[in-house]
Amino acid sequence: MGKNNISIGVDVGGTYTKIAILGKNQKILAKKQVPTQSSLGPRDFVSRISSAVIEMEKLLKAHADGFGLALAGAVDPASGKILFAPNLKGWPNFDFKKAFSKKMGARKFVVENDANAAVWGCYVLDFKKKGENFLGLTLGTGVGGGIVCYGKLYRGSAGSAGEIGHMRVAVGGELCHCGSRGCLEAYAGGYGIIKTARRMLSESPDKGRILSSLCADPNALEPRHLSEAAQMGDVLSQEVWAVTARYLAAGIASLVMIFNPDGISLLGGVSAAGRHLMDPLKKELSQEPFKLPFLRAKIRMTENSDFGCIGAALLALEG
Amino acid sequence: MGKNNISIGVDVGGTYTKIAILGKNQKILAKKQVPTQSSLGPRDFVSRISSAVIEMEKLLKAHADGFGLALAGAVDPASGKILFAPNLKGWPNFDFKKAFSKKMGARKFVVENDANAAVWGCYVLDFKKKGENFLGLTLGTGVGGGIVCYGKLYRGSAGSAGEIGHMRVAVGGELCHCGSRGCLEAYAGGYGIIKTARRMLSESPDKGRILSSLCADPNALEPRHLSEAAQMGDVLSQEVWAVTARYLAAGIASLVMIFNPDGISLLGGVSAAGRHLMDPLKKELSQEPFKLPFLRAKIRMTENSDFGCIGAALLALEG
Repeated sequence: MGKNNISIGVDVGGTYTKIAILGKNQKILAKKQVPTQSSLGPRDFVSRISSAVIEMEKLLKAHADGFGLALAGAVDPASGKILFAPNLKGWPNFDFKKAFSKKMGARKFVVENDANAAVWGCYVLDFKKKGENFLGLTLGTGVGGGIVCYGKLYRGSAGSAGEIGHMRVAVGGELCHCGSRGCLEAYAGGYGIIKTARRMLSESPDKGRILSSLCADPNALEPRHLSEAAQMGDVLSQEVWAVTARYLAAGIASLVMIFNPDGISLLGGVSAAGRHLMDPLKKELSQEPFKLPFLRAKIRMTENSDFGCIGAALLALEG
Repeated sequence: MGKNNISIGVDVGGTYTKIAILGKNQKILAKKQVPTQSSLGPRDFVSRISSAVIEMEKLLKAHADGFGLALAGAVDPASGKILFAPNLKGWPNFDFKKAFSKKMGARKFVVENDANAAVWGCYVLDFKKKGENFLGLTLGTGVGGGIVCYGKLYRGSAGSAGEIGHMRVAVGGELCHCGSRGCLEAYAGGYGIIKTARRMLSESPDKGRILSSLCADPNALEPRHLSEAAQMGDVLSQEVWAVTARYLAAGIASLVMIFNPDGISLLGGVSAAGRHLMDPLKKELSQEPFKLPFLRAKIRMTENSDFGCIGAALLALEG
């Protein structure tokens, strides 16, 4: 742990990057959002983030010991370099540790996959470390994940562990953005859910009248429309969430059988669906023949868009 | 570790129980097989195994420090009691540690799931601990599994982790012996493979002429017939292995994406299929879009029916 337990967490999103300074008891002391502008390259990014951090520290009259950077991609835990990041062209192999050190002085430094960071944040803040083994699924456009084993973030042998969204729930099934077929993400990721909705809408448009009144163009549909319409009693939207729950239940059942965890949390925007997703999900899981591991694994939905920053900041101090 | 590094491993099978005494460098010093007769109850079993062990130790003029018992079921790592064992009626909640101690004196004692024990034996002996993260699948009538994380056997929060055979590869698919649908075991377990073979035989009996000459009655088919026939050029049998490989590849792809392990071994009788299973399996996996974790995870087939005993004996010394 750092001398003063103050740490910076930076969560790189497609459009915006969030910066948070975390103090004692995981309290956020300051928060800022800046445009990511990844196309300007990693050197420019480091420069802008460093300036923002130094300014935030000045205002707080504090100096953070840790610095955690979270982004969408595969990271090498040993070097801290990005190995693979489809949305951050030119960023892989850049030495962030060195570049940030030059701008802000040496800190405890870590680069982490953004889903891993968010799940670690959720494990510490929301689950409060009630158990050593914990899983988190980030449900957004894609489906990400993070694994905590023996109380530690599990990164795997080359730093790419936790890609729960790419577990196969349907051999030869729907095409996933990764290029493979039948991945959980192809059904429970935002684009998979919308695909299901469009198919069901074209089959029985009458059932989705409320949905169509919220969003007339099926090509403009988003998961939030389905959450809202379900809440308003739209039968089709409720059925879309039930279908989504069926695939999600298959994925979660697999994870419970494999990991026998203490808890599983669902994070991310899809949680706006609330009980329309959770009720059918819990019903599916209650029918599992092996009772023991399912009783153990508490499944909950949670939403805190700061988990990524918080987790990155905490992981930096874990060293 | 034990004072003398000598340890006993007992692997309880449906019909026979294997006993092995393991010495330095994981060398088997003595081996014995006795009928399991589980219906006589755990007390009778403990009595017979203890007598056999004491006799083996006398012949060896050695005293083992460790004693590991491996069986099919869910085990509570803390108490060493069986929680759930469908094939061992009356065995759950029996205090094996106490009963064995009474008969043979106190030893470092462990009760472990048999697939976990076999995978641990394989990790130490065959994989030679080349990496911290390792998975094993036991392919028999059912499909079991074991997980090594950070160089330790991962048991989960209630001792039931590693049930890889019950991960879902096909939502709403074939009925599994567990009562659920679409589990990997329902396709890659012995009974699942036979189901595939029977269906394909009824569809195109001509393709399976060699197979039918080896086993005329489809109800008497066993995976070994399919291995032998495939070897002899039977087209249908080769196709059955290819279909099996497709489901197995989906399960393995999920595991690689989740765990990013250093290696995955396939253990058990199905390995007799050899290249007829491995070639299509490797071909499927070579098409995975994420190259990194798949390059890392060496996938191999191995067969050593003593891995269960060896793993149990080694785990006892691990304490």
